[in-house]
Amino acid sequence: MSQIRSVDARLFEIPLDEVLVDAKHGDHFHFHLITATVTLEDGRSGTGYTYNGGRGGHATKAMIKHDLAPFLVGKDANDVEGLCDEMDWHMHYVGRGGILSFAISAVDIALWDLRCRALEQPLWKVAGGAGKTCLAYGGGIDLAFPLPKLLKNIQGYLDAGLEAVKIKVGQPSEAEDVARIRAVRELIGPERAFMIDANYSMSREQAISLARAVGDQNLLWFEEPIIPDDYEGFAIVGEEGGIPTAQGENLHTIHEFKMALAHGNLGFLQPDASNCLGITGWLRASELAKAHGVPVCSHGMQELQVSLVSAQQHGGWLEVHSFPIDRYTTRPLVIEDGRAVAPDAPGTGVTFDWDAIEEFEVRGD
Amino acid sequence: MSQIRSVDARLFEIPLDEVLVDAKHGDHFHFHLITATVTLEDGRSGTGYTYNGGRGGHATKAMIKHDLAPFLVGKDANDVEGLCDEMDWHMHYVGRGGILSFAISAVDIALWDLRCRALEQPLWKVAGGAGKTCLAYGGGIDLAFPLPKLLKNIQGYLDAGLEAVKIKVGQPSEAEDVARIRAVRELIGPERAFMIDANYSMSREQAISLARAVGDQNLLWFEEPIIPDDYEGFAIVGEEGGIPTAQGENLHTIHEFKMALAHGNLGFLQPDASNCLGITGWLRASELAKAHGVPVCSHGMQELQVSLVSAQQHGGWLEVHSFPIDRYTTRPLVIEDGRAVAPDAPGTGVTFDWDAIEEFEVRGD
Repeated sequence: MSQIRSVDARLFEIPLDEVLVDAKHGDHFHFHLITATVTLEDGRSGTGYTYNGGRGGHATKAMIKHDLAPFLVGKDANDVEGLCDEMDWHMHYVGRGGILSFAISAVDIALWDLRCRALEQPLWKVAGGAGKTCLAYGGGIDLAFPLPKLLKNIQGYLDAGLEAVKIKVGQPSEAEDVARIRAVRELIGPERAFMIDANYSMSREQAISLARAVGDQNLLWFEEPIIPDDYEGFAIVGEEGGIPTAQGENLHTIHEFKMALAHGNLGFLQPDASNCLGITGWLRASELAKAHGVPVCSHGMQELQVSLVSAQQHGGWLEVHSFPIDRYTTRPLVIEDGRAVAPDAPGTGVTFDWDAIEEFEVRGD
Repeated sequence: MSQIRSVDARLFEIPLDEVLVDAKHGDHFHFHLITATVTLEDGRSGTGYTYNGGRGGHATKAMIKHDLAPFLVGKDANDVEGLCDEMDWHMHYVGRGGILSFAISAVDIALWDLRCRALEQPLWKVAGGAGKTCLAYGGGIDLAFPLPKLLKNIQGYLDAGLEAVKIKVGQPSEAEDVARIRAVRELIGPERAFMIDANYSMSREQAISLARAVGDQNLLWFEEPIIPDDYEGFAIVGEEGGIPTAQGENLHTIHEFKMALAHGNLGFLQPDASNCLGITGWLRASELAKAHGVPVCSHGMQELQVSLVSAQQHGGWLEVHSFPIDRYTTRPLVIEDGRAVAPDAPGTGVTFDWDAIEEFEVRGD
């Protein structure tokens, strides 16, 4: 029994180097980082976190502070999966996804940090152990970048050692999307993996049309062409457009993952441990993907999910996301020979540089 | 143009007269009331609200205060449906239901209050106008009541003029549920409408078994026999159990309502305007129900939803819920000849007695 003494949540509003734009979420000036530190009666502690595009951080912190923390105090931190389920049921009436999934994720990751530290093992070993490296790609929030800047950004990924890239689509005209895709393909050469992401801004028809228009561009996947709720639509867009579809960042419950896999004929699944009930939820989604023969990838928080994707036999691609959370940790993501390398430190391997982020903390309500 | 000057959120933690228990949400000691008051540049104001079983109120208030209010200031309050959609997209990444649906609901109801006041019309006229009364039933959170107390509670509904009742099921054994159902049926006579509600605590098999065991009890519906996400399961339980199924209180997006109606073969739909994107969301769910030939009912906040159910040609049953929000308003629910009567005052007809609830306000973060 490792009794929980306290759960402390903090909210940080971290500015981006520049305003980033995608097709559906508008302008991003900053992102929210919400940390949850679970402290045990014996003095040990673990830290987890979640993030968002700059909206919803106060609500997430409020839920951890006012609902999850009081519920957890006194409970056994070793029962990680049980607590994940209990938190979910405890808050079900206001949950079934949304803020609850983000709030639980932060706490669950803290419990996994404690678990791995107690085992003196890195996360990649505890969460599967199949390997400690994985494929990785640079995925920018680059919809508003003019073409020269887009290409410069892509070149930056290659210079950083990444061998695969993803760009946003959803320009005012299909012709513009096609031109950008062709220009990027020309820059990176015919073989490197290349994906596109519409942030669910298109109708089925628009998505199919774009996919057909770039059918000769050797695209690996078409991410969120349509709204995440249109599960059957993913299968139709994939089949009629000719490019495998992918989604996951907007799936927050195991039921949503089940529906997405059962009806969507997805080529890739992209759960995000920051919003699908933490590492516990990510691993459950991963098991579903395996049962459907679908590689499990990730969205965001690359510094943590490198350990999860690497650890799976059916691990696919790690997204190296535009929100640089790892800039504020003691071990930014490592890329070697085009692959991302999981940390070997016991725990999640994500240790915040609290001094560096303190200035961004949002205090009070 | 009626420009929004401010949106103010308040949280109240209102104690219940006694601890209430259902099969899945545990003990209720109090409920949360979260109010949202929208004030226009010309000084007019409208008030909306949402509620929950005592968990999640801080997060809901935080989202209205920190995310929705800044987004709405300066926008045109007349564009009620447009603002509902815009708020939903603005917060989509942390939304698709959950806390976001509760937060938007409070704001949307405030905008409807302003709309109806501007028209000098009551809500029942603006939201459909088919009528101003509807069928109503008493629905208690009574799972933990011993049988004598359960029957006394049911008699209380009859004494209050209600002609229909609903009880919770999900006792440790099916035999206990059956005994309670039979006892209530005996008390109320063979003809009065009588429903049961499992709060999604059962497996499909358990639900079918219970439904068959009380097949001779003339039950009108079996509410949430199974988890809300098992859309197809509702059709199976309804068909194999022999009692029409109902759900709605846990459906928070139009996509969830679509799936529930498309796959669930529901006998009744029970949207709750406090958690399905307000009156705008409720009316959209109602239109879907109409298209499927399903009566639209309600869950909770009877003092407001009496106007919505009454206003629909396909209006079904108003739930008179155990959370007595209307005790703290200037016009508690009116029952006449077994039917609930919508208020005629311009606006939503729900005016809080601020002096009476002030003592329950939770301030700060």
